[in-house]
Amino acid sequence: MYNSNFLNINDLSLNQLQLLLDLAREFRKGKQIQLKRPVFSANLFFENSTRTHSSFQMAEKKLGINLIDINPTTSSVQKGETLSDTVKTLQAIGVDLMVIRHHETGWYHSLNNDKKITASLINGGDGSGQHPSQSLLDLLTIYDEFNGFANLTIGIVGDLAHSRVARSNAEILHRLGVRVLFGGPQKWYPKEFDAYGEFMAVDDLIKEVDVLMLLRVQLERLTHEAVDSFTAQNYHTEFGLTLQRYHTMKKRAIIMHPAPVNRDVEIASELVEVPQARIFKQMENGVYARMAIITSILDAKGLIKELPVYANTN
Amino acid sequence: MYNSNFLNINDLSLNQLQLLLDLAREFRKGKQIQLKRPVFSANLFFENSTRTHSSFQMAEKKLGINLIDINPTTSSVQKGETLSDTVKTLQAIGVDLMVIRHHETGWYHSLNNDKKITASLINGGDGSGQHPSQSLLDLLTIYDEFNGFANLTIGIVGDLAHSRVARSNAEILHRLGVRVLFGGPQKWYPKEFDAYGEFMAVDDLIKEVDVLMLLRVQLERLTHEAVDSFTAQNYHTEFGLTLQRYHTMKKRAIIMHPAPVNRDVEIASELVEVPQARIFKQMENGVYARMAIITSILDAKGLIKELPVYANTN
Amino acid sequence: MYNSNFLNINDLSLNQLQLLLDLAREFRKGKQIQLKRPVFSANLFFENSTRTHSSFQMAEKKLGINLIDINPTTSSVQKGETLSDTVKTLQAIGVDLMVIRHHETGWYHSLNNDKKITASLINGGDGSGQHPSQSLLDLLTIYDEFNGFANLTIGIVGDLAHSRVARSNAEILHRLGVRVLFGGPQKWYPKEFDAYGEFMAVDDLIKEVDVLMLLRVQLERLTHEAVDSFTAQNYHTEFGLTLQRYHTMKKRAIIMHPAPVNRDVEIASELVEVPQARIFKQMENGVYARMAIITSILDAKGLIKELPVYANTN
Repeated sequence: MYNSNFLNINDLSLNQLQLLLDLAREFRKGKQIQLKRPVFSANLFFENSTRTHSSFQMAEKKLGINLIDINPTTSSVQKGETLSDTVKTLQAIGVDLMVIRHHETGWYHSLNNDKKITASLINGGDGSGQHPSQSLLDLLTIYDEFNGFANLTIGIVGDLAHSRVARSNAEILHRLGVRVLFGGPQKWYPKEFDAYGEFMAVDDLIKEVDVLMLLRVQLERLTHEAVDSFTAQNYHTEFGLTLQRYHTMKKRAIIMHPAPVNRDVEIASELVEVPQARIFKQMENGVYARMAIITSILDAKGLIKELPVYANTN
Repeated sequence: MYNSNFLNINDLSLNQLQLLLDLAREFRKGKQIQLKRPVFSANLFFENSTRTHSSFQMAEKKLGINLIDINPTTSSVQKGETLSDTVKTLQAIGVDLMVIRHHETGWYHSLNNDKKITASLINGGDGSGQHPSQSLLDLLTIYDEFNGFANLTIGIVGDLAHSRVARSNAEILHRLGVRVLFGGPQKWYPKEFDAYGEFMAVDDLIKEVDVLMLLRVQLERLTHEAVDSFTAQNYHTEFGLTLQRYHTMKKRAIIMHPAPVNRDVEIASELVEVPQARIFKQMENGVYARMAIITSILDAKGLIKELPVYANTN
Repeated sequence: MYNSNFLNINDLSLNQLQLLLDLAREFRKGKQIQLKRPVFSANLFFENSTRTHSSFQMAEKKLGINLIDINPTTSSVQKGETLSDTVKTLQAIGVDLMVIRHHETGWYHSLNNDKKITASLINGGDGSGQHPSQSLLDLLTIYDEFNGFANLTIGIVGDLAHSRVARSNAEILHRLGVRVLFGGPQKWYPKEFDAYGEFMAVDDLIKEVDVLMLLRVQLERLTHEAVDSFTAQNYHTEFGLTLQRYHTMKKRAIIMHPAPVNRDVEIASELVEVPQARIFKQMENGVYARMAIITSILDAKGLIKELPVYANTN
């Protein structure tokens, strides 16, 4: 029922997705699993990510998984060795599971087809491709709030072209029947997103949404494009969640952001912790979402002592 | 009775201090604690410190605490995110306890007043402010030796102005009724230390003390100030523990140093491991002192299974 | 029967070596040990090594040893402090066992003679000296294949002068009665290896061996010496395992390499995973070899609950 890799949220059927959301909620309520034998994991973050990295660590430790500690950004992994050889090396050493963040978009395609790779792979973010664990925690946060996805309008605002969060979420939300709106600088809007929703002026979008998903702006990009006087200050005024725009939101609407937040760019600093903001709640949910992801993989590999209750559903 | 943060040794009453010293000694004798639920800690060392960092790690592991591994000097934590947001992120992920070393003096004041921060904070050294866990291990080492602090004369020699160890120790030793003497270059003596003790020529000080606390000299500082021909060699001759000065010490006097030692600067290389030296003993005591600190916090948070014996005393 | 340090494979008697090989095989079959008390280890890799480092981590975790995490390449350990003081510091903190890789050839001699050092030391590779744990895993791989070392011919090909793997293996294989052949660039052949075997043209060597041990070429060295048009491409043609040479090998012969492999330099890329190649098998064996090494040390220190079965043999 489950897959032994977790690479793209849109590889999941909606049924599988529902099981993962339910499983994440069970972990939040205190569910525990028992492993048939010691399980070893390695988190290979070729790009730094304190948030996603520490969240996976927490999920793994809460599940009783042993971590082999490797830092690809300071170790010799990056020098010359192919990602495939690194993965096979760790597999030979006895690593069952690898969480990989890598700057190459779609790094996992060739590995996924290599029959000699039996260790499970989790995509912790690939270039400007996918970020499926972030997507699952976002969905969990929305699901908690509205107890489903029916009749929701969700707006995603920011650098849509370069955001793997946007790419993962736009498609899965569309598949879930959500009305998806996009906002932000026109030049950062990729035409292919038309398949999932509608581009709209931020002022209009903000009034309509039940969920406002803000994306992190790469400040380097702003600097680089400053030729058209496109600064952080300008971004905030034109596309950010200002106090003024905030007051036009629906009462029940929530504010989400994958963090870290650029205060006073994507969102006014004083709004980061308002009651409607779910930013720290998302981080909390990230641990449960990742526990669910890892558990689904361990289940697929037959490493969990009893089939957990949720397994009967499919 | 205990506090849920440990930020400045001088926040403790003398009664609380005594309890921590006794608790540290119990850990040395083999005391163990039982946790009510899995506890998670993160050690955030924004400045490198092999010694303090590994000592906290050992203390945490001996107490059965799970570590979330984050390296702020190589990770993305430092880029742009405020310390407050980092702390709240880790708290959201489920970290109960953070040991923080940070170059900003008094980094903890604003966090300590933020009601949204419920995770416990331990100061692992702040700028030129405080180093309370080092202070506790120093006190434990003295306490072991003299079974109290009554009638002791203790000399602190070196770069008093920039030493957080000196600042923490001068005040607490004074509060404990110790006669405190200060020595070293006059220009490195901060006038406000007059409140805790007396500045004196090193040759005189060394003859009077029961405990000689040497401070590490920042060699960079010597180089920088070399305009007045103030070199490492000069420092040793004028203010260091030379063989000659060593022979003028009291028989029962002990030698302390927070380490790492600059051999032949603060102390002649052949004196580092003489019977009077407690330098490696201090490191050993560091683990027990930190186990006591962490346990006091876990107790304040209600995370320890039974109230430990020492809790009856207050 | 065992030693409390593991520094050079040639410090072992052949009897001790046999016990370690048998013990490694037992771990592969699932053997477990019980520790009398919590044991703490620190892996100090002053030179990066993902492979050896992660293999030791896995061995330690499988044995239930607690790791104190220190990264000497990014931490302050390297700044000024002597290796001896670092070791004594960690010992004071309670570390029982240190795996050390260090660029200084023979770093362990002075520490081995220091009576104040009671923590056990494992050599994870010293400069151009020894690499005894790699040697043990190589021997285990050969032993598995041929069930002994009698009547074997083994060829070691590559940069013999600078390879600690070659140095460790040449002597122990010779002691085991193996016929040892050496190949590669003449200028990289150290005359003292004449004591262990015979230098031979690669084309001849390859036809005779039961085991072909290829050494990793330091590409930096090739570049540096490119004055005599000595390039990676040339190396492959003149000394590498090309497809053509591969077809002249004996049917039962196996191919070994300590990895990471420079594909198309030491070995043609398409040969890395042929049935005769034991490269990933070596990595797998590395964990069991290191479990045996560590267990022998824990046994020597009296830290294992019951004397394991293998202890009766001697």
